Amino acid sequence: MGRINKSTPELTRDAVSAAHELIKPHIHLTPVQTNTTLSILASTPQSAEALRGTQWEGQAPANPKMKLFFKCENFQRIGAFKVRGAFHAVKRLIEEQGLEEVQRTGVVTHSSGNHAQALALAARTFSIPAHIVMPTISTPSKIAGTQSQGAIVHFSGSTSQEREAVVAEVIEKTGATLVPPYDHPNVMIGQGTMALELQAQVEELVRHNPELSVYGGHKGKALNAVITPCGGGGMLSGNAIALRDTGVKVFGAEPSFQGGDDARRGVEAGARIETVKTLTIADGLRTPLGDWTWKIVSDSKYVAGLYSVTEQNIKDAMRLVLERMKCFVEPSAVVGLATILYNEDFRRMVEKEAGEEGWNIGVVFSGGNTTIEAITKIFAAVPGNEAERAEGTVGKDGGRVAENVAG
Amino acid sequence: MGRINKSTPELTRDAVSAAHELIKPHIHLTPVQTNTTLSILASTPQSAEALRGTQWEGQAPANPKMKLFFKCENFQRIGAFKVRGAFHAVKRLIEEQGLEEVQRTGVVTHSSGNHAQALALAARTFSIPAHIVMPTISTPSKIAGTQSQGAIVHFSGSTSQEREAVVAEVIEKTGATLVPPYDHPNVMIGQGTMALELQAQVEELVRHNPELSVYGGHKGKALNAVITPCGGGGMLSGNAIALRDTGVKVFGAEPSFQGGDDARRGVEAGARIETVKTLTIADGLRTPLGDWTWKIVSDSKYVAGLYSVTEQNIKDAMRLVLERMKCFVEPSAVVGLATILYNEDFRRMVEKEAGEEGWNIGVVFSGGNTTIEAITKIFAAVPGNEAERAEGTVGKDGGRVAENVAG
Repeated sequence: MGRINKSTPELTRDAVSAAHELIKPHIHLTPVQTNTTLSILASTPQSAEALRGTQWEGQAPANPKMKLFFKCENFQRIGAFKVRGAFHAVKRLIEEQGLEEVQRTGVVTHSSGNHAQALALAARTFSIPAHIVMPTISTPSKIAGTQSQGAIVHFSGSTSQEREAVVAEVIEKTGATLVPPYDHPNVMIGQGTMALELQAQVEELVRHNPELSVYGGHKGKALNAVITPCGGGGMLSGNAIALRDTGVKVFGAEPSFQGGDDARRGVEAGARIETVKTLTIADGLRTPLGDWTWKIVSDSKYVAGLYSVTEQNIKDAMRLVLERMKCFVEPSAVVGLATILYNEDFRRMVEKEAGEEGWNIGVVFSGGNTTIEAITKIFAAVPGNEAERAEGTVGKDGGRVAENVAG
Repeated sequence: MGRINKSTPELTRDAVSAAHELIKPHIHLTPVQTNTTLSILASTPQSAEALRGTQWEGQAPANPKMKLFFKCENFQRIGAFKVRGAFHAVKRLIEEQGLEEVQRTGVVTHSSGNHAQALALAARTFSIPAHIVMPTISTPSKIAGTQSQGAIVHFSGSTSQEREAVVAEVIEKTGATLVPPYDHPNVMIGQGTMALELQAQVEELVRHNPELSVYGGHKGKALNAVITPCGGGGMLSGNAIALRDTGVKVFGAEPSFQGGDDARRGVEAGARIETVKTLTIADGLRTPLGDWTWKIVSDSKYVAGLYSVTEQNIKDAMRLVLERMKCFVEPSAVVGLATILYNEDFRRMVEKEAGEEGWNIGVVFSGGNTTIEAITKIFAAVPGNEAERAEGTVGKDGGRVAENVAG
């Protein structure tokens, strides 16, 4: 089936800058927030008690120095970073095919999550029909939400094969162009635009408030590292492309539950893991990497490391962000912060690399599209008993497994 | 018992400006946020269906034009506006008595809420002992939280008489000065400092983004009105003092549940209502006005109107702020927005006063100190069945009634 776009852009910082110029009128410049409590917490060793039962039990806890700068993409349009890639892909498509042609044929994607909403918004902005293929079992509110954005919803079964078959049908009938949720250069480059903003915003923040960078930063840089969640890898690879050769290290964070850390495991094994079946609460990260994103994420010249966290780590980080930062985020959004706070491998690495000077770290909150009911369900589970929690979820959802569902 | 401070400041805008200069180094300049969805919602008539069962059933819904500017005091230090009044009261006390004397004698208050934390922080900043009188039945986390801020916790019974007796004991023993949660000029004036920031921030926002004020504003002003929650009335009267004679109208919002709209009822009856017993979910607003705040709140030269909303209105507004604005707030924080969205008397008044030009309204989010568990409990209740919900709360809490508990 046809993929956007015929010409493949170069995966460079310049391409990201050009994308930024293209999409700027359509996206929010999301704020970068700091939080003293969280920066102090990140720079305080974990207790021996906290490490009990983990793979680091009995080890001396790491003592890294970090100042955190949160890029709040939960305040982005449609509540998630996905509009960046969607607008970029659509604008490039218009450049290539001409607006009238795209308005005649439309765009299509298979997603029931943030990408569907993002593509619907981008398409509507240019009066382009958007076809969204969603599993029949999607919640009614999600279906209604997508329709209310003017998108045409097509139903399919829940497996990726079933969904792809319906996408192929739509393309056959309408001539629509597929805009995949992450595995395309234009989508990756679009997501990377957040890194340019983050760099500039941290520089400005630190210039005006030197105390935000009390450890002095590393080698005179305002921003030393960025950590983003990694599901399909669109956002992580986009950031890595944007920051390549800038001296800013880029890290990815995943949920470890039920093999959700497929990127980390794939890189370790030297081959992409193509299928993931996990019911992690970080539901935007239940996807494996794609061909394009694998190339970037597995290349250490782009991504300096991948780390994973438990469901309990994600819940603990989410509670801190909600109750302390007063910032409403979805579980997927906080895996970067969870890594910073609870993953001793990451913390040890920062201690070693950053030393006493410390690092200023950009932490991407990818989105905030969750509900009070979803949060209630997540926190109603017995703390620490993750197996039981997941079992409960499987039971309640009738054994549904979210396979390859792209956020 | 002795009250701060010996000399009573004038209740003027100049006094608020002076207070602002004094406390600026100790407080956050909290952001003012806008939200397109909420401004559109506020400027769209309610459906006939939405008015069914209310006192406005069968009436044509009002059609006001409003642009909303949210003053996010949930991002304030300790998560609520209360630090403004606490820092101002403490700094004035130091001016009067000298730092050493205040460090010797300390400060005291009766509160288990945001004011206790605010006073503890302000006192700690100047190495002053802070005595906090809390009911024995306070939740352990609240007690621990207050102690962790370095405050000395004293326990009392739950009635205001019991608490005041313990306060008197503390003063007798230590010579500490009482800093009441709202009913003192210095506290009121301190809270009013947010109005100065809000005015300046809205002016700047509108200058740089004229589309935020699409209706043109009223009479060339950037800010036409401000609405704040009203519990003890410290914040409302502070804002009203700061904005007196500026042409910016100030409104107060209360929960109507179980008589929580005591300020509105008092003004209507021409006499302060001195006791309130309500279990409204807006738990920061369960207090009656005090002598000082009544003088301001009941004076129409200061406060242009008082409005009240139901528990369901508060829940609906809270859901919008969390899920749409991605902003974590406590129930008390959203009664102003709930009034704007759901109170037809308020909406009719705006339609009439602002006309087609519309109003730019500052909406104060007073704080964000709640927990995931508290939110779960609030939203677990049967929607619309408020009596049952309250009954449930009474049952679970062993019949505790939160009388005069100041936030």
